[in-house]
Amino acid sequence: MPYEVEEIGSFHIGGREVAFNGLAPREVRWSPSMAPTMVDPNGEFHVEQMYAQYIKLAKPKARYPLLLWHGGGHTGALWETKPDGTPGWQSYFLNAGHDVYVSDAVERGRASWARYPEIFRSEPMFRSKLETWELFRIGPTGSYDRDPAKRIANPGQKFPIAAFDQFTMQCVPRWIDNDVATEAAYDALLAKVGPCVLIAHSQGGNFGLRAAFRNSHLVRAVVAVEPSGAPVAGDAGLARLRSMPHLFIWGDYLDRYPVWQDNIVKASAQYHAALVAQGTPSEWLDLPRLGVHGNTHMPMLDTNSDQIAGMIQDWMHKHGLMVARD
Amino acid sequence: MPYEVEEIGSFHIGGREVAFNGLAPREVRWSPSMAPTMVDPNGEFHVEQMYAQYIKLAKPKARYPLLLWHGGGHTGALWETKPDGTPGWQSYFLNAGHDVYVSDAVERGRASWARYPEIFRSEPMFRSKLETWELFRIGPTGSYDRDPAKRIANPGQKFPIAAFDQFTMQCVPRWIDNDVATEAAYDALLAKVGPCVLIAHSQGGNFGLRAAFRNSHLVRAVVAVEPSGAPVAGDAGLARLRSMPHLFIWGDYLDRYPVWQDNIVKASAQYHAALVAQGTPSEWLDLPRLGVHGNTHMPMLDTNSDQIAGMIQDWMHKHGLMVARD
Repeated sequence: MPYEVEEIGSFHIGGREVAFNGLAPREVRWSPSMAPTMVDPNGEFHVEQMYAQYIKLAKPKARYPLLLWHGGGHTGALWETKPDGTPGWQSYFLNAGHDVYVSDAVERGRASWARYPEIFRSEPMFRSKLETWELFRIGPTGSYDRDPAKRIANPGQKFPIAAFDQFTMQCVPRWIDNDVATEAAYDALLAKVGPCVLIAHSQGGNFGLRAAFRNSHLVRAVVAVEPSGAPVAGDAGLARLRSMPHLFIWGDYLDRYPVWQDNIVKASAQYHAALVAQGTPSEWLDLPRLGVHGNTHMPMLDTNSDQIAGMIQDWMHKHGLMVARD
Repeated sequence: MPYEVEEIGSFHIGGREVAFNGLAPREVRWSPSMAPTMVDPNGEFHVEQMYAQYIKLAKPKARYPLLLWHGGGHTGALWETKPDGTPGWQSYFLNAGHDVYVSDAVERGRASWARYPEIFRSEPMFRSKLETWELFRIGPTGSYDRDPAKRIANPGQKFPIAAFDQFTMQCVPRWIDNDVATEAAYDALLAKVGPCVLIAHSQGGNFGLRAAFRNSHLVRAVVAVEPSGAPVAGDAGLARLRSMPHLFIWGDYLDRYPVWQDNIVKASAQYHAALVAQGTPSEWLDLPRLGVHGNTHMPMLDTNSDQIAGMIQDWMHKHGLMVARD
């Protein structure tokens, strides 16, 4: 359904300038039709910035802009059209009346990335199709095959597996030690955007919960979709989150994957319990317990993505985050 | 001014699957709250794909979608909001009634990048601020200083120099030998989009002219903004471009930079001459000769960017590429 857009734009934010000296010059031919030139690899560079694109509606129905933060090895493309070609959560929430910011965190996508090991301290990691298939709970350990016809998915799972190979085209390299820079850039993003609501996924879910904790004066609500971590429940300052609605969303098959059940879910569960104990309106959506079965680690890409987005939208209504009924 | 949007979406396209075997496993801690796990760097990966985001209007006034192709070391962010915070060419052409596709070519942005030297054969190049300042003809050789107050720009130049450091935040690493993969992905993009018009800049200008040459059944017109190269004028098959409008746009100060005057402009001039000789409606906009002074290599970012876009828009009207007067 068409909607009126006031402005589409983008910006880079955060990071710092670094300078290199003493690296040897090298000869480079920039394109086949150009003569070779000597290039000095030294100089000043901006590093550790992030990128955000915003779509502002002519008549938003939400009180605050909605920020969508992707997970590790991903970019903002995660929120756009789904790999099966159907509309994703960016479209869903635009249609529901939200101004939407889709960002690329430090180290990936349009945020760029910086030399290693000089700036980023480790080597980049490339996630294989097998690892994606297993870690994202599309199929059990050992069920991935290079031949799509031979892959065995979890029973009843809702990932559009015919589009799995297409999905892996949006994966980007990741580093394992850029958390400090990433969090600083997210803080800069929040300072620029002002009061807002976060929907954050996986690694971005961890960043989102932590950013909400650090920026409780700006974040009005946070939705953590399968967050890969959470602040430590005993952190001083938790009290300032007393009135900030939190929503945790978890998909199916968690009990079949020790790395999920023992490590990841536990950290969030402890944090959620601490929030509830102090009176924070924090909710824990265990989808299978609600009768919604088959969601993988990527509910925004699963075939019932609109259903999950609708649950978030209802929750935002309940917490007074919408101006008008959509 | 608000406009009605039918759909905002994106996709990845092109590239190929590669497989790695025999690399040693490594121990990785994916986030601070997770226990270390062993990661197998082997497996299958998709490489050499590209990314495109489209914005489709409810009531387009152009006959064909407009594709904006960035240059080397850049991403599609180039076409969005300018570094000084004012609207760029994506906004201009949306407001003028075009469906707009902004893409990230192979090796950068949301297109991702692949391991080197295994897939990409060379090391990535990082463009320093000094090189950006000089190569993009903002200031003469030796005029860059780390202190913004001490930088000396070309007289009368129109780059928003107070936003120069902000501009460098959108730069991404580049490789020097991905042309074949990049052109294959662009071909796949054109095959998916169908009949269209290209506006392509710098390295992307070279890719755009070559893509128009290869895909003359799909490209209805091509605007090459300071293209870094062009097909060889004597190429067989030039005749099939006889009715395809070409527009070449060149900024100021070219005669002060041998790399531009002797290498880059010459290749396009020869190609333009060959097109004109066979009757192709090809135009050569030498902006200073038209009385438009001060444009750098980045006319879409210069303070008179709307004026240059307006010249392109008038040219598209002239060639019957618009359905209705905007």
